[in-house]
Amino acid sequence: MLNRDVREKLIAIVGENNVEDNNASLLAYSYDSTPRYQTLPDAMVAPRNKHEVSAVVKVCNEHQIPIVPRGSGTNLCAGTTPSEGGIVLIFKHMREILEIDEENLTMTVQAGVYTKDILDRAQAVGLFYPPDPGSMHISQIGGNISENSGGLRGLKYGVTRDYVLGLEIVLPNGEIIQTGGKLAKDVAGYDLTRLYVGAEGTLGVITEAILKLVPQPETKQTMLALYHDLAAAAESVSAIIANRIIPATLEFLDQATVQVVEDYAKIGLPTEAKAVLLIEQDGPPEVVARDMEKIASLCKDNQAFDVQVAQTDEEAEQLTAARRTALSALSRLKPTTILEDATVPRSKIAAMVKAIGEIAAKYELTICTFGHAGDGNLHPTCLTDARNEKEMELVEKAFAEIFEKAVDLGGTITGEHGVGMMKLPYLHLKAGEHGVEAMRRIKQALDPHEIMNPGKMFDPLTKQSKEVEK
Amino acid sequence: MLNRDVREKLIAIVGENNVEDNNASLLAYSYDSTPRYQTLPDAMVAPRNKHEVSAVVKVCNEHQIPIVPRGSGTNLCAGTTPSEGGIVLIFKHMREILEIDEENLTMTVQAGVYTKDILDRAQAVGLFYPPDPGSMHISQIGGNISENSGGLRGLKYGVTRDYVLGLEIVLPNGEIIQTGGKLAKDVAGYDLTRLYVGAEGTLGVITEAILKLVPQPETKQTMLALYHDLAAAAESVSAIIANRIIPATLEFLDQATVQVVEDYAKIGLPTEAKAVLLIEQDGPPEVVARDMEKIASLCKDNQAFDVQVAQTDEEAEQLTAARRTALSALSRLKPTTILEDATVPRSKIAAMVKAIGEIAAKYELTICTFGHAGDGNLHPTCLTDARNEKEMELVEKAFAEIFEKAVDLGGTITGEHGVGMMKLPYLHLKAGEHGVEAMRRIKQALDPHEIMNPGKMFDPLTKQSKEVEK
Repeated sequence: MLNRDVREKLIAIVGENNVEDNNASLLAYSYDSTPRYQTLPDAMVAPRNKHEVSAVVKVCNEHQIPIVPRGSGTNLCAGTTPSEGGIVLIFKHMREILEIDEENLTMTVQAGVYTKDILDRAQAVGLFYPPDPGSMHISQIGGNISENSGGLRGLKYGVTRDYVLGLEIVLPNGEIIQTGGKLAKDVAGYDLTRLYVGAEGTLGVITEAILKLVPQPETKQTMLALYHDLAAAAESVSAIIANRIIPATLEFLDQATVQVVEDYAKIGLPTEAKAVLLIEQDGPPEVVARDMEKIASLCKDNQAFDVQVAQTDEEAEQLTAARRTALSALSRLKPTTILEDATVPRSKIAAMVKAIGEIAAKYELTICTFGHAGDGNLHPTCLTDARNEKEMELVEKAFAEIFEKAVDLGGTITGEHGVGMMKLPYLHLKAGEHGVEAMRRIKQALDPHEIMNPGKMFDPLTKQSKEVEK
Repeated sequence: MLNRDVREKLIAIVGENNVEDNNASLLAYSYDSTPRYQTLPDAMVAPRNKHEVSAVVKVCNEHQIPIVPRGSGTNLCAGTTPSEGGIVLIFKHMREILEIDEENLTMTVQAGVYTKDILDRAQAVGLFYPPDPGSMHISQIGGNISENSGGLRGLKYGVTRDYVLGLEIVLPNGEIIQTGGKLAKDVAGYDLTRLYVGAEGTLGVITEAILKLVPQPETKQTMLALYHDLAAAAESVSAIIANRIIPATLEFLDQATVQVVEDYAKIGLPTEAKAVLLIEQDGPPEVVARDMEKIASLCKDNQAFDVQVAQTDEEAEQLTAARRTALSALSRLKPTTILEDATVPRSKIAAMVKAIGEIAAKYELTICTFGHAGDGNLHPTCLTDARNEKEMELVEKAFAEIFEKAVDLGGTITGEHGVGMMKLPYLHLKAGEHGVEAMRRIKQALDPHEIMNPGKMFDPLTKQSKEVEK
């Protein structure tokens, strides 16, 4: 519970209606979309503008109160669990799209704007904001930026990072800085913009962003390629890229995933296939037509037993929408769904899928795998039950092995979900002890009182040294 | 001069031949491509591999000896001047292209590889490394990465940062870390890769990089658009982008620049034009043809008095090569050429070019302007004489005003050259005092002994506090 002094200071800044600490509110902000992580915060605070954010941060910094900035809480890494109490900062009053600049192809937005609204507003003027994380209908851009969210179009278009040109940031000391700008080139000092993208709210609060837009592609086509075995699907992915074609989307679903998605969406997906690739290309019509023809032929050369091109926009939309339901569909089957995102160089997808299968068998777990084959970003998803403690131990062991395997193959423990609390124990596998140490030093330099989203990404220097002292 | 103990330690690491401290060597590494900055180092050290780099850094960290990592010294911001003595680290033994991975579209290189060799090796297998800084024939990739070099293709393809997937870095404490990988997505911890891109060697030594390649565009076309006034050229740039066309290259040259380039290259450039746009588009033939037609028509709509499309590859190559000679051509006219790179949102190019003209007139200076119009990255270039102290004072005043104007217009003090010593006094204009302070804290956290390229980018925390104490 906040002490009365602090509580009154916060109310003086944001108004009484914007500080909530009744039980229902605390419960609502005690967890995010990650199973098995829950802690009550001391209060929810909803500042109305950057100046209020700054004032709130100053109070918290003075009193060493944890701040957890939170968008819609759709992250899957326990990135916004208030594990050390403190306040959860929400952005319901900061939902404005401030500007669309058609000459410079930028959009300036407040942190609380919904991702989907950004896509829609861009599309309305013939422009395109490519990042499309699975949760984009309800996720907020501030969260996307803090997690450097990915999505289905990463292969061709990159991730959130590639579309953030500038930020307004409230530093842990409460000072407000602007980074970057409407600039294609800017090398004035360290790249704070990219340091804050993906920093998971541990270095400050993002209040505003300048986003890069690109011209809307003229057309899009969608196809499914069906396989009797996983390796052939993986080889098709490699063959497409090796032929210098970069599709907009190149998704992989294993049979189990196709089955549950079909049960859920009922659109006639080919449940007989052991593996399915969902492939989209966008661009000028001539190029899309040529690429799709070439892709179809490469898939057949690599033992696809069928290739189905969507004949209408509706049919195409249905296929992509079905893929987007994978997580929801899987989560209907068992009480607990644990979705991971171990990522490997795309040439290693076959090896990784195979390893996941072997690890699942070893621990007798149900793990379905789907994901962004084109960028090597797989989502092995364990269907389990958090109440079964014995099984949960096995799940943890299995995922630890999956992370180790991914890193062995030149990959990473997380492609697009973030570290949060969930992968904190594994960060060293990818970043190395000295790499984690460098991150810790950056954290300490910018947030010496460790108020910003504590307990995420890595243990701070102080906690470490306390543990050494013990 | 290095003390004997240190000198012997360094020789023990890299061998006698790889430590040079005779006068000729010291003189050779006392300056880079930036006029008016020169200081002798204490020695040149050429490690043969990362382990030697690590060992050298450890010795320097222990003895608090400055290290200036240096590629070919082509930077224009006094980024590699050994202003506080110490050792200049060169990479002549680390010039290997370690791998081209055609499945993952990556190239792994050592820091000393020439940029041009990367482009050529990629092209040989039908792939493309887009960054093309003006000095790419002699610049080294380690330097490009440390300066986040740009070039003529920034508008469509981005800059060096956008093609660095992973780094091998020797930290200031001598530990070696690996960041990133052959991965389209990776959010495991802070984005150290992008923090080190453009860090100007102030946070450690880059020894190896994994670069992203893209498919080689199928075709390319080049045109010139000629104008009787600057504003019309600038409006054409805006019109092209506003029509959702992103050319590969969109360069601007004022009359003075065209004149000296023509005097130098003698290829029949239109010296009667007050402003010239050099425009390239690449991609599939249908798209290039359509875009070029549309661009030509937009230029004419915006008062281009002539549009000339290169009829052959040789002619196109001649035009681009001529543009690339601009700096060399200008530098023949006066003893000293000071090239700047104030950058603005592209919609502000007309305003910026006009302001540069007014500032030049105010101080009675000769400033030619050319640059990357498509990304708002202008190169106002002052032709002067460093021996004329009175004029140099005016030059400094003029450039300070240019930087201020660029920032006023939403731009930056440097688009692609870096801060170095040259723009250290101006960084706060763009980054703000609190932004610079955040950078200082990061620097101090990672390099507490301030051995890495001291005197660049900003004054360190310690120097600051010493000055406050005075």
